[in-house]
Amino acid sequence: MPKLRVHNFSISLDGYGAGPAQSEDEPLGVGGEALHEWVVATRAWRREHGMDGGEEGVDSEVVGAGTEGIGATIMGRNMFGPIRGPWPDEAWKGWWGNDPPFHHRVFVLTHHPRAPIEMEGGTTFEFVTDGIETALERAFDAAGGRDVRLGGGVATIQQYLRAGLVDELHVAVAPLLLHGGERLFDEPLAPPSGYEVIKFVGSGSVAHFWLSRSKQ
Amino acid sequence: MPKLRVHNFSISLDGYGAGPAQSEDEPLGVGGEALHEWVVATRAWRREHGMDGGEEGVDSEVVGAGTEGIGATIMGRNMFGPIRGPWPDEAWKGWWGNDPPFHHRVFVLTHHPRAPIEMEGGTTFEFVTDGIETALERAFDAAGGRDVRLGGGVATIQQYLRAGLVDELHVAVAPLLLHGGERLFDEPLAPPSGYEVIKFVGSGSVAHFWLSRSKQ
Repeated sequence: MPKLRVHNFSISLDGYGAGPAQSEDEPLGVGGEALHEWVVATRAWRREHGMDGGEEGVDSEVVGAGTEGIGATIMGRNMFGPIRGPWPDEAWKGWWGNDPPFHHRVFVLTHHPRAPIEMEGGTTFEFVTDGIETALERAFDAAGGRDVRLGGGVATIQQYLRAGLVDELHVAVAPLLLHGGERLFDEPLAPPSGYEVIKFVGSGSVAHFWLSRSKQ
Repeated sequence: MPKLRVHNFSISLDGYGAGPAQSEDEPLGVGGEALHEWVVATRAWRREHGMDGGEEGVDSEVVGAGTEGIGATIMGRNMFGPIRGPWPDEAWKGWWGNDPPFHHRVFVLTHHPRAPIEMEGGTTFEFVTDGIETALERAFDAAGGRDVRLGGGVATIQQYLRAGLVDELHVAVAPLLLHGGERLFDEPLAPPSGYEVIKFVGSGSVAHFWLSRSKQ
């Protein structure tokens, strides 16, 4: 069975997956970019983005695993861009330039309809206005038997977790405090949508935790 | 200058330093005991408690460091025992038996006065009813130039953190979810009582983070 997977989702030691006051200049909120320093330092991430170099080792393996077997992506509106409310025009096409690093269909959750955007390199952004379950169905269809990656941000992951729809969740705790923002585990993920930690590995830079649904 | 230090304070991945529903049977709340499995597995902890065996390595070194150079301890009422409100009698003498593993003066924060209790092995429990700063002064006096260890629980550590009185804080993130309880970082520790992560080490069992006051 294809799975819905979350990879490389970084939170601070005080639990925040994004800092306060998100904006176009600071898409991850104040201080939030530091959450992902360990990702961009890896060879896997640099290769994915067409660059040489980067560090090998646990972090790079973990980052690389996040794209393996993935056939479609789901993300929330806030991960796609800083615009809130209705789309003012067709100008905003994501944070990632003309050739985004997805190379498959990406489903963006929003309350505001918009026509799909075909990007270079095989990425298409499609806007889903009728809820997380519809987005998941469409993503599984698009993935054609492969898994679906749930990108973020915090609010989107929480919705899928509470509905018990996430199959695997990899969280990296970064050694920093954000002192505010969006907290990933802000409410207990109690049964029936319970999750448990099934694996832990500490690298030199961050602490990696893998979660899956609890056996009921 | 002698310091106020927190060591081996364990929190779950979802941020809780104790589970829900603390009681005499479950002093760390439901599921909370699992937070400390990594501690009791170490050689340092077992030696401290008069036992042979236990695992060597990072975790044991970290646990051992928690008693080095310590001359007095401060703890909250809830860490001392499950009794709330006025002391019904003199029967409760802590969770640790006749010879508690402190071997120095231990200051217990409470709203309810009680005479000091002299235990075996050099431990004395003294009850402080006039606030965290008085307890800290008395503990520094008792420590005679050595450092003071702040034991816990969550509420007590939070009080000292917010007052900016903690000099060093070691937090271990354990690979489990508690789904509720007392959250260590429940409110931002913003300046002027700001803290930052200065060191991170992942062992095979937990993720160790060391914090100190931010340079202002």
